[in-house]
Amino acid sequence: IRERVKLAIVYYSSTGTNYKLAKWAEEAAEEKGAEVKLVRAPELAPMEAIEQNPAWKAHYEATKDEVPEAQVADLEWADAILFSTPTRFGNVPAQMKQYFDMAGGLWAEGKLVNKVVSAMSSAQNSHGGQEQTLKSLYTTMMHWGAIIAAPGYSDAVTFAAGGNPYGTSVTVDGEGNMQEDVEEAVRHQARRTIAVGTWVKNGNK
Amino acid sequence: IRERVKLAIVYYSSTGTNYKLAKWAEEAAEEKGAEVKLVRAPELAPMEAIEQNPAWKAHYEATKDEVPEAQVADLEWADAILFSTPTRFGNVPAQMKQYFDMAGGLWAEGKLVNKVVSAMSSAQNSHGGQEQTLKSLYTTMMHWGAIIAAPGYSDAVTFAAGGNPYGTSVTVDGEGNMQEDVEEAVRHQARRTIAVGTWVKNGNK
Amino acid sequence: IRERVKLAIVYYSSTGTNYKLAKWAEEAAEEKGAEVKLVRAPELAPMEAIEQNPAWKAHYEATKDEVPEAQVADLEWADAILFSTPTRFGNVPAQMKQYFDMAGGLWAEGKLVNKVVSAMSSAQNSHGGQEQTLKSLYTTMMHWGAIIAAPGYSDAVTFAAGGNPYGTSVTVDGEGNMQEDVEEAVRHQARRTIAVGTWVKNGNK
Amino acid sequence: IRERVKLAIVYYSSTGTNYKLAKWAEEAAEEKGAEVKLVRAPELAPMEAIEQNPAWKAHYEATKDEVPEAQVADLEWADAILFSTPTRFGNVPAQMKQYFDMAGGLWAEGKLVNKVVSAMSSAQNSHGGQEQTLKSLYTTMMHWGAIIAAPGYSDAVTFAAGGNPYGTSVTVDGEGNMQEDVEEAVRHQARRTIAVGTWVKNGNK
Repeated sequence: IRERVKLAIVYYSSTGTNYKLAKWAEEAAEEKGAEVKLVRAPELAPMEAIEQNPAWKAHYEATKDEVPEAQVADLEWADAILFSTPTRFGNVPAQMKQYFDMAGGLWAEGKLVNKVVSAMSSAQNSHGGQEQTLKSLYTTMMHWGAIIAAPGYSDAVTFAAGGNPYGTSVTVDGEGNMQEDVEEAVRHQARRTIAVGTWVKNGNK
Repeated sequence: IRERVKLAIVYYSSTGTNYKLAKWAEEAAEEKGAEVKLVRAPELAPMEAIEQNPAWKAHYEATKDEVPEAQVADLEWADAILFSTPTRFGNVPAQMKQYFDMAGGLWAEGKLVNKVVSAMSSAQNSHGGQEQTLKSLYTTMMHWGAIIAAPGYSDAVTFAAGGNPYGTSVTVDGEGNMQEDVEEAVRHQARRTIAVGTWVKNGNK
Repeated sequence: IRERVKLAIVYYSSTGTNYKLAKWAEEAAEEKGAEVKLVRAPELAPMEAIEQNPAWKAHYEATKDEVPEAQVADLEWADAILFSTPTRFGNVPAQMKQYFDMAGGLWAEGKLVNKVVSAMSSAQNSHGGQEQTLKSLYTTMMHWGAIIAAPGYSDAVTFAAGGNPYGTSVTVDGEGNMQEDVEEAVRHQARRTIAVGTWVKNGNK
Repeated sequence: IRERVKLAIVYYSSTGTNYKLAKWAEEAAEEKGAEVKLVRAPELAPMEAIEQNPAWKAHYEATKDEVPEAQVADLEWADAILFSTPTRFGNVPAQMKQYFDMAGGLWAEGKLVNKVVSAMSSAQNSHGGQEQTLKSLYTTMMHWGAIIAAPGYSDAVTFAAGGNPYGTSVTVDGEGNMQEDVEEAVRHQARRTIAVGTWVKNGNK
């Protein structure tokens, strides 16, 4: 009997967009029979900063007890990892980077090799660094020896969602409203990540 | 009976370095039982330019009849593709880019999805754009829907070869002499590309 | 008496989008008193390929005698350079790269140092590699020792045009229609390139 | 009377390499008559982590009272900024990214436009992400509307230091020993940053 593929969905979200992307991915992955862990990258901002932004505070309160904090052990556990991250000045936020940086020990032991990874992002402008953020994240993944399964144009749904081949990305306005309908693209990306994860898991024994 | 994995090794070389890397990869891949096609990206430079550089001319003459020119059909044929390319101003040379650009038709038909790819490079300075060139090439691969299997630090041999996780890279001096011993890293990368290519080929049926 | 700043506008265009961006930039630059040279990167595609695409053929015919081919000498002549380039698989097209590669001689003589550069792009999807293409081009510029003046968010017009801080970018549909109104952003970028070019020219004496 | 150009040197260093680069830069900049502020990006790691690494602890203790913590106000103060940062998995460390992320307020007010920036880096392998880290940092700078003055090959000293056109970079071994002699390249980069900073400051009035 083949084991189910293990998918970690690791996101960082201040006001909820990337949480929503992550939840759609979780649903699609579970429908496909994957064992899924949805975890959030630990917050670094001081409570004063969070409290100045009502949307941030509301999302922080809503998820802090419900969603477990990402541990580096989750990376070791997973066969495949799907990241969802906002863009901050054309790169992942410090919160996500700090989580990556903490994986130095696992990396040194070679325990991150052959993880299948894929990533999604959001920004406040259409060309606000979504591509760059995904590419920066994949750079880190290459250091880990991961196998990168960006969506490319592997399904027509990518075109409908804005056509980002590096990963599904969405533009959000000042009120946090998504400007494109990316749900199907997210679901496709989650299924693709699992599919490639399964091929690698079964092959690499 | 399982089919052998098909590996295309596509290189561009003016004075021979990337040809040498490609040949080491070919040897390692054949030892592993892959079906290998070694092909060179078509030359774009006019003969006058080539003739002004004796090393370029010598290499051009030595390979023009021996090594077949890369066709876009080779990309369709392959399960896995290993590229070897010099860096020109932090990016692939026009010759390699022209070859990629010609694949627009295959791309539009979705025939480049799920190719497993990896890449190697060379430059004249230690930090002369090797990393950037590999990353640019992988960006194009993401457009194709390829699955990227950079070496990362999946084997200790990477450290010995300069520690480039994006792909084996070598520095060459003005006389074309390699400044690091990268042969084992090249062989490892070829084997890794085949391994991941096999997992994907077997899984994706 | 201060000399006028010399701006080279170098574009590649198959069906006319980047030509249009370049023309807007030319107009804005001349209004500001710059000495402008608008030149097109030489075509590499064979006539058979061009003839299969009516829009490409029409644009090729319309500009081949009217707009001079870019020479590497234009790079030496210029104080500032504004590029306009389509994206091909997340990178500049081979035509543009070939033009860059031909500048090896000027580079070796140090004659490209301190050129002020900026770039614009276009693609067929909203997130179709516009960011990556601009970043690849700037990587090459760093090899040249250029001073990079991307627009950033130096004017509110950038937000209106899609918010690409790396350079104005536009999405074109299958018929070549621009999907965003970027004219003002192009004009702003041209003026900014000239302004920074003037500061550097006057300072660097 | 012309004002002196203001240079902020912002570094992050765990075991001292980037501090050393920053100090060389400071000396060179002061020799040229710039007004220099040398500041360190705030530490994010918990004391337990720092204490497990004697070299980290020693450097932390040695600088925590001596070097002021970087404030976002330092970015507003500066005409030019020189960064020195280690590479962590092909990107800036979370500490540096956190510092950038805190500049959101200044960015929104447009107060980061036209800063002249340049950057240096270090890594533990020759090709361990130095190029990528510098490029990631410059991506953020483009969001700020900064003017990027990477060294390129603007002086022969770059070749001697490993030939990194994006910024001086150095490889350090497990004991923190620099593997290349980059002092002159650092000094050149500091002087170049000041020179371009001066041109922009004087021009942009």
